[in-house]
Amino acid sequence: MSTKIHAHSRSDKNRNSFWIYGKHAVKAAILNKERKILRLILLESCKDFLEEYGSVHESLQAELVDKNYFAAKFGKDATHQGCAVLVKDLHFHLCLEDLLTDESDNRPFMFLDQITDPQNLGSILRASAVFGARAVVVPEHNSPEFSPAIWKAASGAAEYVPIIRVINFVHAINDLKKHGFWCVGLDEKSSKTMSEMDLERKLIVVIGSEGTGMRRLTRESCDFLVKLPGIGSFTTLNAAQAATISLYEIRRQCTSHCFATG
Amino acid sequence: MSTKIHAHSRSDKNRNSFWIYGKHAVKAAILNKERKILRLILLESCKDFLEEYGSVHESLQAELVDKNYFAAKFGKDATHQGCAVLVKDLHFHLCLEDLLTDESDNRPFMFLDQITDPQNLGSILRASAVFGARAVVVPEHNSPEFSPAIWKAASGAAEYVPIIRVINFVHAINDLKKHGFWCVGLDEKSSKTMSEMDLERKLIVVIGSEGTGMRRLTRESCDFLVKLPGIGSFTTLNAAQAATISLYEIRRQCTSHCFATG
Repeated sequence: MSTKIHAHSRSDKNRNSFWIYGKHAVKAAILNKERKILRLILLESCKDFLEEYGSVHESLQAELVDKNYFAAKFGKDATHQGCAVLVKDLHFHLCLEDLLTDESDNRPFMFLDQITDPQNLGSILRASAVFGARAVVVPEHNSPEFSPAIWKAASGAAEYVPIIRVINFVHAINDLKKHGFWCVGLDEKSSKTMSEMDLERKLIVVIGSEGTGMRRLTRESCDFLVKLPGIGSFTTLNAAQAATISLYEIRRQCTSHCFATG
Repeated sequence: MSTKIHAHSRSDKNRNSFWIYGKHAVKAAILNKERKILRLILLESCKDFLEEYGSVHESLQAELVDKNYFAAKFGKDATHQGCAVLVKDLHFHLCLEDLLTDESDNRPFMFLDQITDPQNLGSILRASAVFGARAVVVPEHNSPEFSPAIWKAASGAAEYVPIIRVINFVHAINDLKKHGFWCVGLDEKSSKTMSEMDLERKLIVVIGSEGTGMRRLTRESCDFLVKLPGIGSFTTLNAAQAATISLYEIRRQCTSHCFATG
């Protein structure tokens, strides 16, 4: 398998280390023993937070800063909730191949074709953690840079589900298909609904961007195109809603034994 | 039925008329013949928008304004996309009773117990339009004021689904129960999943706030408590995700004939 070549050939700017803010996301990062925390900054009003989680990482020295410090770092309207951590990327060296070692693992991959909104990406990470997706896979280009807004929306889910960036999106799909995966693309013009399809198999789910849907070559890599059932007069969910429902539907159909929850 | 007493006893500030911004939401408002548009403001860069939709309302005179005008009105970081309309509230005088005239209408009501995030409310409106909810019902207090951020997130869905504010949330549930509705609350601690329940009946779905869940009296009004199936290690969807999946699950179970699509 040639997946190795899809691994990160990228600048480290923003990625090898990045800031996470928001109470749920920061708490989850601190409590994750595998997460390397470089800095923890807090507003005075978040000192209770420090008392509760400050001792988890022995060497970590919390820094009390003021509102202006947060504003200068994240912008005036950032919803940081008074706490932030600078962390190392948990999954910086991870590539698709690393997630294929357990043959009995039937968790789906969530492929996002040019979804650029950080809120949507965070929300999809969250659903992926809840319903047990193996990874969220995005193209190296036309995906959002890692930003605190993603981790805030993910609300701690980033500790459970890796984001993997691939150079060639379609090659990555085809590589996984050689490993027994079936590729299902969401397309509201399809005549078949997702719940009519037997989803108890190894799956790649592809969600396209809200504006333009999947790119042509991505669509052509799909084994199935399915829609979600609407009432007809108003049909468009946003990308995160469509992804969330897809993961739910897979989870609903599969009995618990078909998932390795590792 | 005493639902009339739950109708709006509120100040008109922000509600009888309000601003909608964002291309999808503004377009949907303009194309809705029942929507009274009071003003249309546009950036120069959105003139094509004017050419396409400017003639829908004969008396409407678009105003070309600059970025500072938008910033002063909506804040510097508002994602207005260069267009906004000031509109009359379509549903200002609507109360629950008005939605019960058709006995054969089996569409569910979505009750939101103190969900305060405008993005979540907008997202739930969107899912409600796609899957055919009759209305989104919120308590008069502890719900977000109508703001452009809601309509932006709803992306046009506000033209299809009313938001109804009720003075007494629990009374409103009990009133609907007298009309044959069953009340289902989402509770991640329940032992039963939503998909195990027969949802082909008249339903109220209740979603609690993310922080604290449903209030005690709300919970006690529920005929059933159900959860959504997760893998266990990370369990919390946000309120909008839970609402979206609930509406999907109802739609999935019901055959198309059980919905009047309005």
